[in-house]
Amino acid sequence: MKLETAKGVRDFPPEEKILRQNIVEIIRDVFERYGYNPLETPLIERLETLSAKFAAGESSDAIKEIFRFKDQGKRDLGLRFELTLSFARFIGMNPQLKMPFKRYEIGRVFRDGPIKLGRYREFWQCDVDIVGSEDMFADAEMLAIVTDVFRELDLDIEIEINNRKILNGILEFANVPKPKSEKALIIIDKLKKIGKEGVSKELKGLKLEDTTIKKILSMINIKGTNNEILNSLKNKLDNDSSKQGLEEMSILLNYLKEFNVKATFLPSLARGLAYYTGPVYEVYLKNSEIKSSVVGGGRWDNMIGNFLGKGKYPATGLSFGLEPITEALKLKNKELKKSVIQVYVIPIKTRKECIKVAQELRKENIKTDMPLSEKGLSKCLDYANALGVPYVLIVGEDELKKKKFTLKNMKTGKEELLNIEGVIKKIK
Amino acid sequence: MKLETAKGVRDFPPEEKILRQNIVEIIRDVFERYGYNPLETPLIERLETLSAKFAAGESSDAIKEIFRFKDQGKRDLGLRFELTLSFARFIGMNPQLKMPFKRYEIGRVFRDGPIKLGRYREFWQCDVDIVGSEDMFADAEMLAIVTDVFRELDLDIEIEINNRKILNGILEFANVPKPKSEKALIIIDKLKKIGKEGVSKELKGLKLEDTTIKKILSMINIKGTNNEILNSLKNKLDNDSSKQGLEEMSILLNYLKEFNVKATFLPSLARGLAYYTGPVYEVYLKNSEIKSSVVGGGRWDNMIGNFLGKGKYPATGLSFGLEPITEALKLKNKELKKSVIQVYVIPIKTRKECIKVAQELRKENIKTDMPLSEKGLSKCLDYANALGVPYVLIVGEDELKKKKFTLKNMKTGKEELLNIEGVIKKIK
Repeated sequence: MKLETAKGVRDFPPEEKILRQNIVEIIRDVFERYGYNPLETPLIERLETLSAKFAAGESSDAIKEIFRFKDQGKRDLGLRFELTLSFARFIGMNPQLKMPFKRYEIGRVFRDGPIKLGRYREFWQCDVDIVGSEDMFADAEMLAIVTDVFRELDLDIEIEINNRKILNGILEFANVPKPKSEKALIIIDKLKKIGKEGVSKELKGLKLEDTTIKKILSMINIKGTNNEILNSLKNKLDNDSSKQGLEEMSILLNYLKEFNVKATFLPSLARGLAYYTGPVYEVYLKNSEIKSSVVGGGRWDNMIGNFLGKGKYPATGLSFGLEPITEALKLKNKELKKSVIQVYVIPIKTRKECIKVAQELRKENIKTDMPLSEKGLSKCLDYANALGVPYVLIVGEDELKKKKFTLKNMKTGKEELLNIEGVIKKIK
Repeated sequence: MKLETAKGVRDFPPEEKILRQNIVEIIRDVFERYGYNPLETPLIERLETLSAKFAAGESSDAIKEIFRFKDQGKRDLGLRFELTLSFARFIGMNPQLKMPFKRYEIGRVFRDGPIKLGRYREFWQCDVDIVGSEDMFADAEMLAIVTDVFRELDLDIEIEINNRKILNGILEFANVPKPKSEKALIIIDKLKKIGKEGVSKELKGLKLEDTTIKKILSMINIKGTNNEILNSLKNKLDNDSSKQGLEEMSILLNYLKEFNVKATFLPSLARGLAYYTGPVYEVYLKNSEIKSSVVGGGRWDNMIGNFLGKGKYPATGLSFGLEPITEALKLKNKELKKSVIQVYVIPIKTRKECIKVAQELRKENIKTDMPLSEKGLSKCLDYANALGVPYVLIVGEDELKKKKFTLKNMKTGKEELLNIEGVIKKIK
């Protein structure tokens, strides 16, 4: 029997899981601080829900990469590949919910795709969304959350923003035929990565006319400050979609000032999924070897209404990728915490009594361990060292009589004789 | 398109998820307090791993109820139905780990089984295990953890314990043929539920001889204090397996005294899975409508060695069922917390300024919300009420000038005029 994990999935040993858990807690804290409540949706969804055409879009790899299976009743099922779809289904099934509805969900998603560097088949996303508000205030709040999370993680970021209505306006202005627009957007999105020539070449592959390609490039490649780009586009585009998009962008930029959030207007930013309808956002790390985006999101006003076949449910949100954030922090912090244990109690012929001592420390919420069987002092120190435990508490018969224990700082080697209250105070 | 979840899985809206999250945090805190580190294993495992014969056992429903599928490379995969198997695989793949290795893992597991009351296809387990110690101290620590968790949850429990070696000794004493022993244990386990007659009838169905059945019943049905049962069995059984099991039980009972843990020795307790080798434990709620067990576990000394085909990896652990614990607390607490929000900031023509106020509260880690667009006071109070928010902060132009805000306690209706520091202090 081969002893291995399934392809593309991973185990996270304690030193990695401790870090991941810390990151998740920071993200969760910020979400809650902005008034978002937790929601949990299942990992298993009906295949029909996951493959809804109006959701991820037909050109998306995501649909092809769904892990598919049947239950014993032969129902078609799949593992979710993102969290937004399940959220939209949930809202559709719960019309009684008070709007706006602000929720977050943190959990695993799955993609049965090729394994490349930094791409896995099972990974975590941390999503935060608002349903029931068309106001750009909601979008600004999203980017305030991004700013707070990365401030707490101590990572420098660059936030890129655009608006799908502007992009649609550009496609209209350049006469891109409707059936080709989804594919054209996916190509335009690559501008930063493959440059003007690359985009031009790929658009030619779509059999678009040269004048169309030229028009597109002249719009998505404008450089300048946010306001310069905004004004430049305002001067060149005058169809309804562009006008709306540029108006939304202008309001959003104003709100961002109030929230003290810095963002860069990037007219080529599209984001892969088909369901975005307004602002889109993407976040990259500065000064890091991690080049993939760490957060992505945008407004998705139509999906819930499409699910229900009626009604208007404007929505906006974003998704933090736990994987690239973890990688970035591992590169930055180098040494990982190996254990949560704060103190290791070492009995010298005082096993029974040490149970009481350990239980007393635990009552004070101190993370305490002790050997599970009789062991010598040096073996115990070894164990504590291997786990990177900061303190050991040595309890001999003499110490018990005096009710004073030797607390040793494992980093400095310094020893102190303290009563139990002193030990608790020191460790806390 | 039908808008529904897959069969047997559930959405957890905020009021349920907040409760579930609180329970998980209490359990996690206690695990860490006892020196256990977090581990994460994947939800997707190779089918070969999940269906290992020496693990769940051939008579177990668990294997039949695995959600099975293939990846695009045609590899046979499945969703995990418990956490222990993946943990055993992880240990087998990481021989460098320092022993004893104490870890916990909290996550979802899956069973493609029939849907009955309280049984789901996707549910959470909270597991804690030690590998690398044969000492009964490790088993006692498990039950100390159980005691602490339910004390913090404020739920009364009854811990039942037994030992597989004693049960095996009883089967040997009663001359149960080896191939029938796994099935016999599953029947014996039902004594509490179906009574002496029920067990006798089902054992007859296994075609065991009458004297065999009589012998079994005389052993598993002994009543008395833990020590009375222990002594009674010691007098009647003298094969090696029984002797070992009874010796382990005696040591375990002594350790439990040191840890101040109460448990009931129940000689019929077997637990379903085939991999248990020593002490087994099962925990029920007292004075609750929830009749299913809330924790189960035991010693599983052979599984990792079986995986590896060599070596000795004694292990013990237990699994908390999040579902029955949640149900019990819902029955007990009645009113659920609907939202994490601590204060709702209501601008009266002071939207811009309120962004600053909200951000200041958030900096102090206060969970703060505010309307996403212009809304009247009564609509805002309505929203705060619907979400059960404890405080609202009303910010008018006058208030801004005076730098004093009206903090309203939504339960008592009491209003106070406070500066921002006062507001922060009051809410905290």
